[in-house]
Amino acid sequence: MANKSHTKILILGGGFGGVYTAMALEKLLKKDASVEISLVNKENYLVFQPMLAEVVSGSIGLLDTLTPIRRLCPRTNLFTREVESIDLQSRIVTTSTGIRPRPSHLEYDQLIIALGNVTSFTGQSGLHEHALPFKYLGDALVLRNHLIHALEEADIERDPEVRRTLLTFVVAGGGFSGVEAVAEVNDFIRVASRSFRNINPGEIRVVLLHAGSLILPELPDTLARFAQSLLQRRGLDIRLNTRLVGATAEYALLEDGERIPTKTLVSTVPSAPNPLVAALPCKKERGKVVVNEYLEVPDYPGVWAVGDCAWVPDRKTGQAYPPTAQHAIREARCLANNIVANMKGRAKKGFAFKALGKMGALGHHSAAGEVFGFKVSGFLAWLMWRAVYLMKLPGLDRKIRVSTDWFLDLILPLDIVQIKTERTPGIGRAHFEPGEVIFSQGDMGDRLYVVVEGEVEVVKEDSGKEPIRLAHLGPGDCFGEMALVSDNPRMATVRSCSSVNVLTLDRDAFHALFAHLPPLRGLFEQLIEQRTKAPTQR
Amino acid sequence: MANKSHTKILILGGGFGGVYTAMALEKLLKKDASVEISLVNKENYLVFQPMLAEVVSGSIGLLDTLTPIRRLCPRTNLFTREVESIDLQSRIVTTSTGIRPRPSHLEYDQLIIALGNVTSFTGQSGLHEHALPFKYLGDALVLRNHLIHALEEADIERDPEVRRTLLTFVVAGGGFSGVEAVAEVNDFIRVASRSFRNINPGEIRVVLLHAGSLILPELPDTLARFAQSLLQRRGLDIRLNTRLVGATAEYALLEDGERIPTKTLVSTVPSAPNPLVAALPCKKERGKVVVNEYLEVPDYPGVWAVGDCAWVPDRKTGQAYPPTAQHAIREARCLANNIVANMKGRAKKGFAFKALGKMGALGHHSAAGEVFGFKVSGFLAWLMWRAVYLMKLPGLDRKIRVSTDWFLDLILPLDIVQIKTERTPGIGRAHFEPGEVIFSQGDMGDRLYVVVEGEVEVVKEDSGKEPIRLAHLGPGDCFGEMALVSDNPRMATVRSCSSVNVLTLDRDAFHALFAHLPPLRGLFEQLIEQRTKAPTQR
Repeated sequence: MANKSHTKILILGGGFGGVYTAMALEKLLKKDASVEISLVNKENYLVFQPMLAEVVSGSIGLLDTLTPIRRLCPRTNLFTREVESIDLQSRIVTTSTGIRPRPSHLEYDQLIIALGNVTSFTGQSGLHEHALPFKYLGDALVLRNHLIHALEEADIERDPEVRRTLLTFVVAGGGFSGVEAVAEVNDFIRVASRSFRNINPGEIRVVLLHAGSLILPELPDTLARFAQSLLQRRGLDIRLNTRLVGATAEYALLEDGERIPTKTLVSTVPSAPNPLVAALPCKKERGKVVVNEYLEVPDYPGVWAVGDCAWVPDRKTGQAYPPTAQHAIREARCLANNIVANMKGRAKKGFAFKALGKMGALGHHSAAGEVFGFKVSGFLAWLMWRAVYLMKLPGLDRKIRVSTDWFLDLILPLDIVQIKTERTPGIGRAHFEPGEVIFSQGDMGDRLYVVVEGEVEVVKEDSGKEPIRLAHLGPGDCFGEMALVSDNPRMATVRSCSSVNVLTLDRDAFHALFAHLPPLRGLFEQLIEQRTKAPTQR
Repeated sequence: MANKSHTKILILGGGFGGVYTAMALEKLLKKDASVEISLVNKENYLVFQPMLAEVVSGSIGLLDTLTPIRRLCPRTNLFTREVESIDLQSRIVTTSTGIRPRPSHLEYDQLIIALGNVTSFTGQSGLHEHALPFKYLGDALVLRNHLIHALEEADIERDPEVRRTLLTFVVAGGGFSGVEAVAEVNDFIRVASRSFRNINPGEIRVVLLHAGSLILPELPDTLARFAQSLLQRRGLDIRLNTRLVGATAEYALLEDGERIPTKTLVSTVPSAPNPLVAALPCKKERGKVVVNEYLEVPDYPGVWAVGDCAWVPDRKTGQAYPPTAQHAIREARCLANNIVANMKGRAKKGFAFKALGKMGALGHHSAAGEVFGFKVSGFLAWLMWRAVYLMKLPGLDRKIRVSTDWFLDLILPLDIVQIKTERTPGIGRAHFEPGEVIFSQGDMGDRLYVVVEGEVEVVKEDSGKEPIRLAHLGPGDCFGEMALVSDNPRMATVRSCSSVNVLTLDRDAFHALFAHLPPLRGLFEQLIEQRTKAPTQR
C-alpha cells in the first residue's frame, strides 16, 4: 500500500449498486482504519423498488420499502446531498448545499459512480405534465392519493360524462413494472370503491395500453398469455398493439388519434441517461459509462462504475448486462473485491453472472415468472414471489415489519385514507392539444396562465347570442388574471388553437408575488384596465 | 314530521364533533330513509390527535392515527372539499372546487357547525415563517423529517458553532401538547443520533420554554413536579418563566432579549377562531358560536354548533365547557339526540358532562395524569394512557394496527428514514431581526428575495479592504437575482437594517417565470445591467 495516511473511497449514489459496494467494502476492510469510505445520496435510505406497487394499495407500510443507509453501512460517512458535478481531472466531486447555502467539495482516491438512470418523457407531448410516473416511492404515494381523490370526486359528481372520465384509469406499458402497477391499481380501485356509496362497480374501467401483441415481453409466451388472460378475467381492459403518444388533463391520446377520457394516466417511465453521467469525459454507450470486465473506467485509474449507469460487458455475448437489482448487487460485490485487490496488490476478478430468474406480481395473490429456467404461475408463484423478495429485503427489522404487514393485510380491511401533505404555493405546467377548453366562462378562477408555446383564443359566450372572439394570445402572454384579482367567476372561455404548453401560477403564489413586487403589480393593473375597457382586447 | 320528502342534515367539519354527530345520527335514524346526512371536510379521514406525538418517533405507523370517515359513517354523503362560505339566510353552504373548477352549493334543513378552530401565530414576529407548528398530522411528519435533516447536516458539518445550532432543539409551551412533543423529540433525537457516526450525544441539547413557574398547569402541582423532574433527569433543559417572542431561521428570541441559536423551533400553536365562524352573523363569545344548553344557535332555527368552535354553557358554572375531544364526543351525541327529538316532536335534553380525567405521555414509557380524581404517574400511568387511547381509537382495524405497531416498537430499532415528498417549485417567506446576514458573499445563489417589510443593505467585502456599502433596499425591491442568473456565487453580502420580512422565490420558480414572461424578463435584465454597470447600485 502507498505511503498515504488515508485512502479516500467515494461512492456516488445510494441505490443497490452504491450501497452494496459500501457494504462489501466495510466487510472486506473491517480492520483497516486507513481507509475512509463516503457515500453521497439525495436520500438517507435505499428504496426496495420491487415492493413499490404494494405501497399503492397500502398492503405494506409506507416506510417498509425503505432501509436507512446508515444502518446498512455504519462505517461509511453518508452525505445526504445531491451530486452537482464530477471533476475527473482534479478528482473532486461537488455536492449541493445543505441547510446553509455552501456547497461541499469532496476529494477522492477511488471513485465509484453508481448514479443509476433518470426518467424522461421527452418527445411525448403532455406526458411530462399529465402522466403520473411510477418509479420512486414518492410516485407510489402520489398515485395512491390521486386514486382516492378520483374516487372522492366521482362519488359526489352528477355529470355522467365527468364521472366516466374520473372512473377511467389508464396504465401505459405492458412490461413488468406496468403490469405490476395496473394489477395493484385494479385491485385497489375495485376494493376501495365499495366504501363509496354513490359509485357503482360497473362504472369503473381500468385500461392497460401495450405496444406489442402480448404483454410481459420479458417472459416466455406461455406465461405471458397466462398472465394476460388472468388479468382480463379480473375486468382489466387490455389494449394490445396500442401506443400512447400524448396526454392532456382530460384524456390519453393514442397513436391512431383515439382519445381515452381519463383523469388518471400512469406511465412506466422510459429511462434516460443521468445528465451527470452524460457530462463525463469518459467513453459511453447509450449514455452509460463503459467499464471493463473488472468494472474499471478505462483511462481513468481509480474510477469505477456499477449498476444501471454502467455499461458492463458480458464476455459471452459481447452485450451489456441488463440493468436489474440482481445484477447491481453482484457487480457491487465484484467491484469491492477488485478495489481491495488493487490496494493489496492481488489479482482482480472479472464480472460474470447468470440471472436467477424473473418474476412479476399480478395482484390478487397471483404472480408469474421464470426461475432457474422453470416457469411458475398463479398462487404458488405469488407465494414464491413474496418469499424471494422478503429474503432479498435488506435488514431483519424490515423483514419483520413487512411480514407483519402482509399478515395484517390478509385480515384487515383496505385503507382508504388520503394523506394530503401541505401544499406550498406554487408554479405548475399544463399541456393542451388543439381545440381544447382551458377554462370555461363561469368557472372559478383558481390560477393564472402564461403561454409558453402555442396559441389560444379568448371567447365570450352570452346565452342566445353568437360567441364573440375577444383575443388571440401567444407565447409570453398571460390570461386568467381577471378572475384572480376580482374573485368573480371567469368572464370568458379560453380555448387552445394549436398544441399549447402553459405555465400556471396558483392563487396564493399569484397574490404573494403581485402584492409585493410593484413593477409586476403595475404590469397587471395596466393589463386589466386595458382588457376591461376595450372589450375586443378581452 | 313535516310533509317534505327529504330532510337534509348538513354537517360542516370532520373532527370529533362532526364525525360523532354523523355516527350518532346514523344510529338514531337507521330505518328512516327520508333523512339525508351529508358531511363536508377537507380530508376524508378523522385524525386521532392524542397519538400525533408518536408519529414523530415512528413508533406508530403514519396511517394509524387516521380513520376513514366513510368507514365510520357509511350512510353519510362525504364531500371531501373545503367549506368556502356559509349563508345562514338562504340556508346554503358553498364548498371549494374539486378536480373541475366548479364550486358546489349545498342546501340544508338542519346545519351542524363543527369547524373546530385554526392555528395562528399572529403577533409573534418570525414564528409564522420559522417555527414548526404541532397540531396536524402533516406537522408531525414535517417535524420528523426536519429532525432527521438536522442530524444529517450535523453529521457532516465541521464548523462547531453551526453544529451546535443544528443540534439544539427548542420546544415552546409547557402545557400538555408541548410536553408530549418535547418528550417525543428528546427520545427520538437521542436514540436516532446513535446511527450518526460523527454526532456525540453530549452535543445534543433539547430545551423546553415555559412561561409559568411549573410545567403542565393542567395537572395538580405534585404531578406536574413529578413530570418536570422526570424530564430533567432525561437531559431536558427546562427554562421556566421564559417567554418566546420571536424567531428567525437561526435562533429563537426570548422576552429578555436572549437568543437561543437553533434550526429547530417547535411551537404548540395558540388557537384562533375559524374565520368562517367569525364571519357568521350569530352571537359569538371569544370567536366561538354561542349555543344554548341544547346546542342550538339562538335566532337561527335548525342551526347547531358543536366541539371546539362552539361556546357551550356549563349550567353549573356559567362558563363554557373546555375544548377537548372528550367533550366534543359527548356534545355530538347530545346534539344528534336533540335533532331527532325535534323532528319527532319529543323533548330535547340539555348538555351536561364531567370530564373523566386528563393524562399526558412523557415519553420513554412514562406518563402522568389525573383520572376520576386519582393521581397517577410513571410506567403504570403510561400503560393506562395507552389502554385508554387504544379504547378510544375509532375502528377495530386501527386498534389492531396500533397495538401491533406498539409491540414491534418494543422489539425493533427506531426508524431513521427521512421521507422527502416531491417539492414543487415555490414561493416561501422568511423573517430576519435587525442586523442579520440574509446571505453572505460567496454563498451559492439558491433563491431570489423580495422585500415585503423593512430595509436591507448590500455590502461588498474584499479581503484586506474596508467593506463598501453598495445599496440600501426597501419594500418592493428585490435582490439576489444576480447569482440566480449567472450561476456564480453571491457577489455581495446582504444584511437586515431593521426587522425584515421577505418573500423568496426558489431557483426553479424564478427560472420558470422569468423565462416565459417577457415583461418580467425585461425588468430583470434591466435591473442586472444597472447593478453590474454602476457598482454603487449594488
